[in-house]
Amino acid sequence: MSTLLNTVSSDNEIAGLRIDLPRLLARIAALAEVGAIDGGGCCRLALTDADGEGRKLVVGWMRELGLSVSVDAIGNVVGVRAGLEDGPPVMTGSHIDTVRTGGRYDGNLGVLAGLEVIASLNDAGIVTRRPLAVGFFTNEEGARFSPDMMGSLVYVGGMPLNDALETVGIDGTTVRENLTRIGFSGPQPVDRPDVHAFVELHVEQGPVLEHEDITIGAVTGVQGIHWTEFTVEGVSNHAGTTPMGMRHDAGYVAYAIASFARDLARELGGGQLATVGHVTVSPNLINVIPNRAVFTLDLRNTDADVLSEAVRRVFAKAEALAQAEGVRISHRSLADFAPVQFDERIVARVESLARERGHSVRRMPSGAGHDAQMLARVCPAGMIFVPSVKGLSHNVAEYTHDLDIGAGANLLLALMTELAS
Amino acid sequence: MSTLLNTVSSDNEIAGLRIDLPRLLARIAALAEVGAIDGGGCCRLALTDADGEGRKLVVGWMRELGLSVSVDAIGNVVGVRAGLEDGPPVMTGSHIDTVRTGGRYDGNLGVLAGLEVIASLNDAGIVTRRPLAVGFFTNEEGARFSPDMMGSLVYVGGMPLNDALETVGIDGTTVRENLTRIGFSGPQPVDRPDVHAFVELHVEQGPVLEHEDITIGAVTGVQGIHWTEFTVEGVSNHAGTTPMGMRHDAGYVAYAIASFARDLARELGGGQLATVGHVTVSPNLINVIPNRAVFTLDLRNTDADVLSEAVRRVFAKAEALAQAEGVRISHRSLADFAPVQFDERIVARVESLARERGHSVRRMPSGAGHDAQMLARVCPAGMIFVPSVKGLSHNVAEYTHDLDIGAGANLLLALMTELAS
Repeated sequence: MSTLLNTVSSDNEIAGLRIDLPRLLARIAALAEVGAIDGGGCCRLALTDADGEGRKLVVGWMRELGLSVSVDAIGNVVGVRAGLEDGPPVMTGSHIDTVRTGGRYDGNLGVLAGLEVIASLNDAGIVTRRPLAVGFFTNEEGARFSPDMMGSLVYVGGMPLNDALETVGIDGTTVRENLTRIGFSGPQPVDRPDVHAFVELHVEQGPVLEHEDITIGAVTGVQGIHWTEFTVEGVSNHAGTTPMGMRHDAGYVAYAIASFARDLARELGGGQLATVGHVTVSPNLINVIPNRAVFTLDLRNTDADVLSEAVRRVFAKAEALAQAEGVRISHRSLADFAPVQFDERIVARVESLARERGHSVRRMPSGAGHDAQMLARVCPAGMIFVPSVKGLSHNVAEYTHDLDIGAGANLLLALMTELAS
Repeated sequence: MSTLLNTVSSDNEIAGLRIDLPRLLARIAALAEVGAIDGGGCCRLALTDADGEGRKLVVGWMRELGLSVSVDAIGNVVGVRAGLEDGPPVMTGSHIDTVRTGGRYDGNLGVLAGLEVIASLNDAGIVTRRPLAVGFFTNEEGARFSPDMMGSLVYVGGMPLNDALETVGIDGTTVRENLTRIGFSGPQPVDRPDVHAFVELHVEQGPVLEHEDITIGAVTGVQGIHWTEFTVEGVSNHAGTTPMGMRHDAGYVAYAIASFARDLARELGGGQLATVGHVTVSPNLINVIPNRAVFTLDLRNTDADVLSEAVRRVFAKAEALAQAEGVRISHRSLADFAPVQFDERIVARVESLARERGHSVRRMPSGAGHDAQMLARVCPAGMIFVPSVKGLSHNVAEYTHDLDIGAGANLLLALMTELAS
């Protein structure tokens, strides 16, 4: 632990350091104007012209702050501030791409708070022992190209570069041609990076912190996620003339599996989540037994064993229901990520630094995926959450109170400075 | 019983009478050419030009057969063949309108078999004691104008004429203007009609007869039907960041009610049916908890008490689920018809006449609504079912074997002749 965290609380100069909240908010507002949509939100789908424009704005700010900027072959951008010594940097960052009707904080906050950390250190004339780095990763949202977290996944060697470049998006164009078009196909080779530690500040995107009136989330890890699409095929028939015992009702099997999954999540308890957000039945008429139902199942847990148990039990129930009803059921995996644990030393330090500053804090897992979970494959990593009003995210109404942004950014400043000292 | 049914088995001339099956099939084929659609089906939505053309074809056949044709103010058409005595006729009939992708038998068979009964009696030179009548009723399907069975409902005084005429259809036009346009706004006033008895031949539209290899269904009545549209309103949130205990998942409540209704039908047993054929959730995304779900519930039973019990229990469950989940639930009735019992003497005579002719026969309720259930309000009524291949109906692939059509039409001939003697 001693090589990772050297507390600097004895250093009054650094301990008293604070970020400039109005300056950070101004950068958030300025970036939000790129691809702005009604309601205060943003549409900067990955590698679109709007994303390119946003990238250029942020790269300009990096250069103004004196960072040494590099762009790699998948378009990840990293700005480095030299330390007193060479070596792997203490890194922060996130992403600036958004979903189609996104907010202005998701991702952007992490990148711009990183720049504000740099700016605050510049103002104070402080140079840390280790280098600092601020990055933004390509296509975190996955709203245009699958998979999500693509840039950070390639960055840590989890996906071959060429596979990522050849990915075809929802508009039929590839990552490669879009990177070239917007000028972000960089010369930096993608190698397993050497990073001392990684910390990401992000809005919670959920209701827990606000609901419990807590300012800081010390993120313990990211849930495992298991996405499945089920297709049930039965026989369409007249709802009034077909006895119950002669039915092959695809709709019923879908409803029963969906209902079971939810009840199972409550039964398993802990952090087990189950959501059936998408369902379509055919022919979708009041008096016709459905011959086809397609639905998705989103299962998540921080505990890999319980998640596997949930998957196993839902699949077994689906088979049993299908057999009893005489329908065919098939499924395909849409995502399958194991849970990620963040570095305990960083989690504990987020907690204690928050308390030292008088903030309420709780440990919590992240329900959503984040670039930090990819970085956790190559270095000690952690995250700081700040509250999302009403838990809203991927929504133009996404909002985090200014003072919470200030609290999170100051915590990021303290933690990065400490990690780099 | 003696005034209603005087068996004529001692009359060899009438007992030996048979319909001309090729002639009946030719009329079915000719009518199916009006509004023909791919796959052998028909599209003659009520009061469209195609329906008007079909009506004129059938009215022409009625006149050729010497029937005295009248059209009433809601467009019902009745052709009467005089008997040896005046008085209320023994009536048969059905409808010739279809759903958008309908078959050629549903409704049409009952009307054209009625004409074949007349033709066969004409050929044999037989005049019955009572008059005979063949009718077709306006808008039985309800696919363009609600409610279904409109013409027969008005015919028996169950709906004010003016309400029916003012009904606005799916294309924004009224029954009144369409009746006028196609020339079927008739001069005959709509009065509570005086009918001696009513018998309707119809395809089963379900799988039971074929499944049990039975030729004739002696229809005991029509199920009660209770249609409800439920709307569940919850709160949309991120599927990964919202703990189970903080959810207001409209989708889950819909799936659980739908699943409960089906399980309840199996528990109640007997003829209780439950179908959730229509469901939509919003925003319908894999990783977003639905904030809104709309679904329909179709409950049917021949037993009014059990049907009421089913309705009561589903509604109670819906309220309990909504309260537990913290969502709002509302519902509106789309249909609510009590079960109808057909006249036991007619049911028994369908059964015994079928057996006398060597046909397999079973008593059964009708799952679908039919004009005969409206006529049952004003006179002894009954129905004869013949098998639907694979139970298909409201489908261009609707099919009934020729020999089954022959069996049903001969039974109709025998029963009408007997009722009229």
